[in-house]
Amino acid sequence: MAVPSEPMGPKVSPLAPPDGFPALPPVAGVRFAAARAGIRYRDRDDVMLAEIAPGSALAGVFTRSATRAAPVLDCEAKLRTLTGAARHGFAIVVNAGNANAFTGAAGDGAVKAVCAAAADVTGVPVAHVFTASTGVIGEPLPPEQIEQITGVLAKLRATLSPDGIEAAARAIMTTDTFPKGAMAEVTLAGVPVRIVGFAKGSGMIAPDMATMLAYLFTDAAIDRDVLQVLLSDAIGRSFNAITVDSDTSPSDTVMVAATGQAGHAAITNLNTPDAQAFAVALEGVMHDLALQIVRDGEGATKLIEVRVSGAAHDADAGRVARAIANSPLVKTAIAGEDPNWGRIVMAVGKSGAVADRDRLRIRFGDVLVAERGWVADSYAEEDGAAYMRRDELVITVDLGLGAGTATMWTCDLTHGYITINADYRS
Amino acid sequence: MAVPSEPMGPKVSPLAPPDGFPALPPVAGVRFAAARAGIRYRDRDDVMLAEIAPGSALAGVFTRSATRAAPVLDCEAKLRTLTGAARHGFAIVVNAGNANAFTGAAGDGAVKAVCAAAADVTGVPVAHVFTASTGVIGEPLPPEQIEQITGVLAKLRATLSPDGIEAAARAIMTTDTFPKGAMAEVTLAGVPVRIVGFAKGSGMIAPDMATMLAYLFTDAAIDRDVLQVLLSDAIGRSFNAITVDSDTSPSDTVMVAATGQAGHAAITNLNTPDAQAFAVALEGVMHDLALQIVRDGEGATKLIEVRVSGAAHDADAGRVARAIANSPLVKTAIAGEDPNWGRIVMAVGKSGAVADRDRLRIRFGDVLVAERGWVADSYAEEDGAAYMRRDELVITVDLGLGAGTATMWTCDLTHGYITINADYRS
Repeated sequence: MAVPSEPMGPKVSPLAPPDGFPALPPVAGVRFAAARAGIRYRDRDDVMLAEIAPGSALAGVFTRSATRAAPVLDCEAKLRTLTGAARHGFAIVVNAGNANAFTGAAGDGAVKAVCAAAADVTGVPVAHVFTASTGVIGEPLPPEQIEQITGVLAKLRATLSPDGIEAAARAIMTTDTFPKGAMAEVTLAGVPVRIVGFAKGSGMIAPDMATMLAYLFTDAAIDRDVLQVLLSDAIGRSFNAITVDSDTSPSDTVMVAATGQAGHAAITNLNTPDAQAFAVALEGVMHDLALQIVRDGEGATKLIEVRVSGAAHDADAGRVARAIANSPLVKTAIAGEDPNWGRIVMAVGKSGAVADRDRLRIRFGDVLVAERGWVADSYAEEDGAAYMRRDELVITVDLGLGAGTATMWTCDLTHGYITINADYRS
Repeated sequence: MAVPSEPMGPKVSPLAPPDGFPALPPVAGVRFAAARAGIRYRDRDDVMLAEIAPGSALAGVFTRSATRAAPVLDCEAKLRTLTGAARHGFAIVVNAGNANAFTGAAGDGAVKAVCAAAADVTGVPVAHVFTASTGVIGEPLPPEQIEQITGVLAKLRATLSPDGIEAAARAIMTTDTFPKGAMAEVTLAGVPVRIVGFAKGSGMIAPDMATMLAYLFTDAAIDRDVLQVLLSDAIGRSFNAITVDSDTSPSDTVMVAATGQAGHAAITNLNTPDAQAFAVALEGVMHDLALQIVRDGEGATKLIEVRVSGAAHDADAGRVARAIANSPLVKTAIAGEDPNWGRIVMAVGKSGAVADRDRLRIRFGDVLVAERGWVADSYAEEDGAAYMRRDELVITVDLGLGAGTATMWTCDLTHGYITINADYRS
């Protein structure tokens, strides 16, 4: 097997949050640890353990890929059979560097071995151990590393800390150029509640879903079924509304754990002000993390928001937004700071959505570019060109037909993407 | 409007046919001319006229984009109203450098003006004049050039020649690095018949269809309805089976004219040996031209054939083939000569087709890479790496589920694509 070279992009994406990883507060009932297992990366942590206290609720959403990785299949099966409030806690184990995807029966065996070792070390039942692996597809986890896993997990267990979240966020990175964290606070029944989360991902990112892992933790008290509905609902407007390169990984995982240790009355009904307040805060953290993934898109130099309105219905709006956000010609034009709105028209046309050339209206930020089937009378090329020089762009397309809307986020397509992906085995 | 820079790719694609443009024989009843209209290119022909003799049959297939360009809308309308054998001949006028797409009422007016001038100059009724425009989207044809069109067309008319086909093929190029021509000969009822064709296109190429124009001419005698059916049928296995960048243009046009001057009994029934022999020859020419378009894919250094078999049905096979052929991660891996079959698995998984990890079989050429959900026992990385160094690759994916098959052709995704499209306004 060839020794993979390291990514060759910039040290840190130019779109990274300027203040670095946020200061995330501890969440009562959750502890983290990170360590070096040496699975692929030699000079950094590449495995993390999160331990979640008994009484917590857990929910998850996974890739819809038909070639889902062994850890995803295991997580899905376990979530389906979880019953009621957990008398036991949970453990989450994530490694970076090897996706354990398309590794056949050996891959299933590796998941079983890791889960058994984690159960052994933490005292959490094996049915409550959830794993994820991210990195190279199709290479088995080396047997010697699986043999050493108990030792690695014991070390992790010994160093668990409520303050270990940034180390955990760093340990799951692959081609990421910065660790991604976000948080929100919300008051439920007079009690302040925290939601914190971290994520990884920068390539193979597209709706439904991406090479993307995200873990969220809250001390809110919330029924498991309610938590699952809120998570599933917010996915469409966060992690499934981003695309870097239209490719979808077999490993994508988003999980949220609610420990209930904030001490308010548990949320058991979606249709309450508390449930709605929590939903807004949860979606805010998810949206923040999703946009950080786009900001770390491989080779990205521009963050692009594509807003579509006036479609016949929301599904058509989604088609148009996705066609624009995935178009190599649109994304290369933006990389070149070219206000090439003709390529937007092309993408609308190919999307499969109902569209009428003579009703289309296109804006770059506040600049009206095209309307009534042609360039706008007021449009001056220098205005479009000036707007394109920004780091963050909003492209608005109004189809002028109905009330359907959709928004997606993407990045530009640059030489950096080619350099990273023509040389990096992922 | 910014002055567009010229494409910055290689002078000629490394995948271009080594012998250059083929020596295409004249087709009785068809004459060509090319000239400089100065629409965008200053130092080369950029407009061509083809004149087709009375008694000919004409068929066409066009882009399915919802933002079809004005010339496409005009061609579609005219083809729908053509009746029976044409007492009059046809004229085809194509310009390069401006697509006259998304140019509102002015665009429709430009088509009318060009058709009227061509009818005037050639004596062909305006309902028999077909135009196409390729190049920048969203910029109107300059009024002064429309005013000069009669003069340009008169000059073209005066220089029409049965031998002008290569000049015509060159006049419609945009980012193409070489002109594309192909031919076939077939014997119908003991009479030798010729089919010749030329095409342009190298970016914004994807199924249904591409920034792609193709014109075919034959001296066969064939009923118009039969010709249309044969053309429409062969499109799916030729021009609609290629993708360069998954983008689709609003201008794509394929037309075939049959003059009947070979002198055999006319083909009026699909279910005859002659019709089938003609169909095979026509598809051969279309397939040859389609692959030349991929060979001229922007920045291409590898020609890739993606063969899918064992799908639940042909539609699923098509989904898998398209997902692989359009995947930026697959295409960048191939650019880097990396036998990264994990990305093939990823593309299968995201395609939406029914797939079973444990039945999947992947081959690079004759090298069995993966089977039964994992890398094949016999696979050696150096064999895959050696295969990837070829210019022309065949990737075979057997889903192991049913009898569905599909084949697509694509090219790799390189720095050349980024360079061309971040700087060229198309």
